[in-house]
Amino acid sequence: MYTVLAGGVGAARFLRGLTHLVPPDEVVAVVNVGDDLTHLGLRVCPDLDSITYWLARVVHPEQQWGRADETHVVASELERFGHEPWFTLGDRDLATHLHRTLRLAEGARLSQVTTEVARAFGVDLRLLPATDDEVATRITTADGRDLHFQEYWVRERGRPEVASVRLAGAEHAVPGPGVLEAIEGAEVVLVAPSNPVVSIGTILAVPGIRAAIERTTAPVVGVSPIVGGEVVRGMAHRLLPAVGAEVSAVGVARHYGELLDGWVIDRADADRAEEVGALGIACEVTDTMMDDVEVAAALAGTCLELAASIRARADR
Amino acid sequence: MYTVLAGGVGAARFLRGLTHLVPPDEVVAVVNVGDDLTHLGLRVCPDLDSITYWLARVVHPEQQWGRADETHVVASELERFGHEPWFTLGDRDLATHLHRTLRLAEGARLSQVTTEVARAFGVDLRLLPATDDEVATRITTADGRDLHFQEYWVRERGRPEVASVRLAGAEHAVPGPGVLEAIEGAEVVLVAPSNPVVSIGTILAVPGIRAAIERTTAPVVGVSPIVGGEVVRGMAHRLLPAVGAEVSAVGVARHYGELLDGWVIDRADADRAEEVGALGIACEVTDTMMDDVEVAAALAGTCLELAASIRARADR
Repeated sequence: MYTVLAGGVGAARFLRGLTHLVPPDEVVAVVNVGDDLTHLGLRVCPDLDSITYWLARVVHPEQQWGRADETHVVASELERFGHEPWFTLGDRDLATHLHRTLRLAEGARLSQVTTEVARAFGVDLRLLPATDDEVATRITTADGRDLHFQEYWVRERGRPEVASVRLAGAEHAVPGPGVLEAIEGAEVVLVAPSNPVVSIGTILAVPGIRAAIERTTAPVVGVSPIVGGEVVRGMAHRLLPAVGAEVSAVGVARHYGELLDGWVIDRADADRAEEVGALGIACEVTDTMMDDVEVAAALAGTCLELAASIRARADR
Repeated sequence: MYTVLAGGVGAARFLRGLTHLVPPDEVVAVVNVGDDLTHLGLRVCPDLDSITYWLARVVHPEQQWGRADETHVVASELERFGHEPWFTLGDRDLATHLHRTLRLAEGARLSQVTTEVARAFGVDLRLLPATDDEVATRITTADGRDLHFQEYWVRERGRPEVASVRLAGAEHAVPGPGVLEAIEGAEVVLVAPSNPVVSIGTILAVPGIRAAIERTTAPVVGVSPIVGGEVVRGMAHRLLPAVGAEVSAVGVARHYGELLDGWVIDRADADRAEEVGALGIACEVTDTMMDDVEVAAALAGTCLELAASIRARADR
């Protein structure tokens, strides 16, 4: 079993590469749900959906979230009722949220619904929500406002300075079914090149998950989401300082710290490999910009080789 | 105040005619909610919406329900999740149901939401749900099945033989805010040419409404939905026999019985005017096929004149 801690699109690209190397039914993605929100009464799970749409090749090609060939008839009609238009759901996308909301109302767990949705889109690896409980990533801004992650990122376009990040509701949350088993029973635990704070950090904030990673005998190997001091996509550069981390391949490795056995960084950061090694983390340098599936597969292969060498060293 | 008991499209045409004669803000429609259903978790109110869309001139011109220029992106996407496709919601229409469902979940009453929706569509008369409580018209078929009205009419295309009709939940329902006042304080109570069983009958099945009509000092004048022994639209011919009524202008008058002071029938049924009169109901003959607003306005005018003459006779 190959278990991947996953945010959105970066994770989706990585997962697609990985499933070129290993059978999809041996791949489990533990997915962030901190971005989830209830909008217009509908339960929306951006990371789960981005991964599903991406792997099903129905993702919007420019946005890299939402559906390709999307229309916005419902959203435009909703304007007459005075709903806040900052978070717009396309019509195709809305069908997913309608189905999910209905199933949850019927008493199904998010993990069940996630499996149903993935299957409906022909996704052949396992997607596990980090938790079935409702949690929410909240951003406290430097000017003292408390925003849902989507308010910060979508409504405010990620502009406010971030003072701190927390996963609201985490104290009552438990890991989703299969999550701890997937980490403890894994051959390798992989940390996708997702946002360290609001994707991976919020997975780790679910009580029990961090401890399972610390406990697992599997090598834990991550991929840096920072290349040459820049985020590949998203807002990690705005959030890493809020957790006291440097916006660099080394800074993220240091932030994950003892969780990591191995860390894969881009050639652009090759000059910092030694600093990673000095943290006691085995470092590998390769091409991490997953512009096509071949690069993604090669990157996944590098991760698996690094994991194998870490395991071999441990067995010696 | 002109108070109209109303079903769907037939009532909408009649209301449009009436508001050509009297100020819209003096018109109140008490609307059937027995057809309402929860579909995909969304609260759908077919009669309220048909009237709203029709009066706002955004109704689908051929269907005479749902929205003009409608698209079905959400519905087609929902198919992948295996939802029963028999009840299809268009995208524009869906926005109304999403808004309504959200507002009801927030604790708003159906009557409030109905006012909001009507206002959002620029409808300038008052639409009152017969009740804010959830009721459902249920059809018992001759072969013993118990169907929601929409299952009978949409899914089964009105084919099963009908044994009986009831308004489930009526025993716990109370008239919506303003309904009894609109009937008791009316200048005239008008019964639109709607289905006598599953539109008007289900309004009358809400405890208190029939008594208010019996009690009101206003003349009660109806328009026959049957012309020349045929229904103008819908399934009244399948349902009237289930309540022991003849499918004719006279049959419906007899079915309403003592509720009516006046009854307006089509010229095609002129030869039966005497039979109506013999029931103790003042009868007027005119053109009732409301193909355009002029005919509808003339029909409403005939109703108001008949009401005036009934009132004058009563005052003598």
